[in-house]
Amino acid sequence: MTEGSQHITRRKLLQHSASIVALGTAAVILPRVEAEEPGKSVDPMRVPGTLPRPYGERSPFRKESRLGGGGPGAAHGWGANAPNNFNSLTPLQELHGIITPSSLHFERHHNGVPSIDPSRHRLLIHGLVERPLVFTVADVERLPSTSRIAFLECSGNTWDGWREAQDVGVQDTHGLMSTSEWTGVKLSTLLESAGIRREAKWMLAEGSDAAGLDRSVPLTDEVMNEAMICYGQNGEALRPEQGYPLRLLVPGFEGNINVKWLRRLKLGSAPFMTRWETAKYTDLMPDGKAYQFSLVMEAKSVITYPSGQQRIQPGFHEISGLAWSGRGRVKQVEVSVDGGLAWQAARLQEPVLPKCHTRFRLPWRWSGQEAVLQSRCVDETGYIQPTRQALVKVRGTSSLYHYNGIQSWKVDTDGRVRNIYA
Amino acid sequence: MTEGSQHITRRKLLQHSASIVALGTAAVILPRVEAEEPGKSVDPMRVPGTLPRPYGERSPFRKESRLGGGGPGAAHGWGANAPNNFNSLTPLQELHGIITPSSLHFERHHNGVPSIDPSRHRLLIHGLVERPLVFTVADVERLPSTSRIAFLECSGNTWDGWREAQDVGVQDTHGLMSTSEWTGVKLSTLLESAGIRREAKWMLAEGSDAAGLDRSVPLTDEVMNEAMICYGQNGEALRPEQGYPLRLLVPGFEGNINVKWLRRLKLGSAPFMTRWETAKYTDLMPDGKAYQFSLVMEAKSVITYPSGQQRIQPGFHEISGLAWSGRGRVKQVEVSVDGGLAWQAARLQEPVLPKCHTRFRLPWRWSGQEAVLQSRCVDETGYIQPTRQALVKVRGTSSLYHYNGIQSWKVDTDGRVRNIYA
Repeated sequence: MTEGSQHITRRKLLQHSASIVALGTAAVILPRVEAEEPGKSVDPMRVPGTLPRPYGERSPFRKESRLGGGGPGAAHGWGANAPNNFNSLTPLQELHGIITPSSLHFERHHNGVPSIDPSRHRLLIHGLVERPLVFTVADVERLPSTSRIAFLECSGNTWDGWREAQDVGVQDTHGLMSTSEWTGVKLSTLLESAGIRREAKWMLAEGSDAAGLDRSVPLTDEVMNEAMICYGQNGEALRPEQGYPLRLLVPGFEGNINVKWLRRLKLGSAPFMTRWETAKYTDLMPDGKAYQFSLVMEAKSVITYPSGQQRIQPGFHEISGLAWSGRGRVKQVEVSVDGGLAWQAARLQEPVLPKCHTRFRLPWRWSGQEAVLQSRCVDETGYIQPTRQALVKVRGTSSLYHYNGIQSWKVDTDGRVRNIYA
Repeated sequence: MTEGSQHITRRKLLQHSASIVALGTAAVILPRVEAEEPGKSVDPMRVPGTLPRPYGERSPFRKESRLGGGGPGAAHGWGANAPNNFNSLTPLQELHGIITPSSLHFERHHNGVPSIDPSRHRLLIHGLVERPLVFTVADVERLPSTSRIAFLECSGNTWDGWREAQDVGVQDTHGLMSTSEWTGVKLSTLLESAGIRREAKWMLAEGSDAAGLDRSVPLTDEVMNEAMICYGQNGEALRPEQGYPLRLLVPGFEGNINVKWLRRLKLGSAPFMTRWETAKYTDLMPDGKAYQFSLVMEAKSVITYPSGQQRIQPGFHEISGLAWSGRGRVKQVEVSVDGGLAWQAARLQEPVLPKCHTRFRLPWRWSGQEAVLQSRCVDETGYIQPTRQALVKVRGTSSLYHYNGIQSWKVDTDGRVRNIYA
């Protein structure tokens, strides 16, 4: 145990929350609080409020954005490495719990978000099947369904980890991931309807976006048991950025495999070697060889508060973050405030679900001295999230994808938090 | 077991899904699907899609609304029994899983939704405490936090159950409930900060809306263990309709207790007898007496598909719905398709969380004959959701609140589904 965090009592906690006002021992009546809409000042208790709305919006005082913060040189949202090839980032530093609001779910698309009329969309299942089938969206919605809360992470999330540390925030380092409750039909239900031929071992999933993204998916037992064709996200229909009206979901697999705007599934005996798995999404190793089809996102974690570009005051803080593993449940998250010398177990927020973000929390009293905050995830397979040093030792620094090293946030004596490699 | 639902195979399932097209045994390439934005027709693969957005919106093809459907005489959304006294209803018939999108969370407010600037809002804790305290929203956000997925149900949900059956849909009968992931500070953390005096047994929670809604909350062990002061909803800040910037959450208690736009907590030795618990929100019994403070929402369930005002075709259907209990977890949901003569266990979707909606599902083949669909919830205390007849026998028909009888949907031979009392 470090920094005396186990000794934080509620009384002490208050002593370190400078702005909480103690009013003495007499009961008092607080004057009604003035509230203010941008531009006008009103007491909310003296004017009737607004009427119900068919579809609500957030408070005009909230400004969280997928655009991202990011300092100079930050690889933040809207970045394009080719015309119309974009992403946007979830503002993890401003979010709570595990569910990502759909409006703030990260985006990754290689030629923009297509606009699709669900009544005209079709899903074809063909290739090594007994009888090719075409489904309307309504057909899919009428089949036996299932729901699951699961994370999605772009394989390029934290790719700056392979290069030099940038002075950016957690939205820039880790914002290519989000968690939703997904609803749809099991992939196996659809494939078995068409009749899977014995020699079918792989599946080509094709999107109907202008980039024509298509990926090969191995038809392992895990995929057959867990993959879904989704039409629901956080209770309502998929958002356009997440694949409306239909997407593939393979929990635990890299984001790109979860093909959006899904129009065709073709069964075959081998991977289809599309350009998305030859020219891109491979892992270049130090010896010059490149691994293909490293599809599972390994155990990983990140502290979202305090995190890069924030500024904190001495006193009580609740360290909080997210942990996840494409292999199953998070078993433990340990936190260090001294750059990895000492570790203590964080509290895991229930429910802890497989292949899903898990929120962790640890109380901490910052003394005002330099500190380096780190978290490491242990998943149910026993795998421990590696240090950056250990990861680079094996993988080198030529990769773009699948970086899962321990993240370090340095707290300077002035309270500013910076992204460093420790 | 009834209607042969246990014999539904995937092959049979397809035979009953008339629109799925079988293409023969040769592999085929489906022509690219035309898509259409309202007003113009495009192939989504031939035009670049739209760029990322800071805060996303749903597809323009989605029209789900809190306004509600509702036939003549339906007590659907926007209903006002006094000027500016409104509600709106969650469209349960169109939603998936358990999370309600915040934009479609039901609303209930007695004088509109206040607009509150969080930087000017304060929370006062006073009354029988050692030291009255005033918190800013930022103060509350810095304290140790917790998250929880929980349902909220207005005590007036399904109040037409006490009167004659209306020909309405499930949004009208049951739409005053929703489920979110809530994040905030434990109530006990705040109260213990102020120092709870021994004689404090109740708490007055006051909202800063123009109706000045205030309710007495018993400080039982359950409330002290579970109640929260929330600032987060489904990952982001509370929505204005759900209490931005701060609300009380007492999982399992009637919606009205979960005071929104929370500005004061006053501890006392007895209930405060506000007009919201004397003139309203009481249960009038057949003998003319009225119960106060029946605060826990008892076990209940409803089939959301097929449901009122829908029209179905003979063949395969997945019966699906929600079950919940303010006493804890749902243990079992049973479904009948013959008005309660025979029952079979529905499949419960994981995770099954305490005081939270649980999604249930049961495959069903509709033969085209009259059917009456019912569901009943059994919670972990062993309590069984009662029939309407049993409920009315004890409670009479003079109540407005806390109706939790079994819902019946009659399927006519033409496939139309109607709300009936069976």
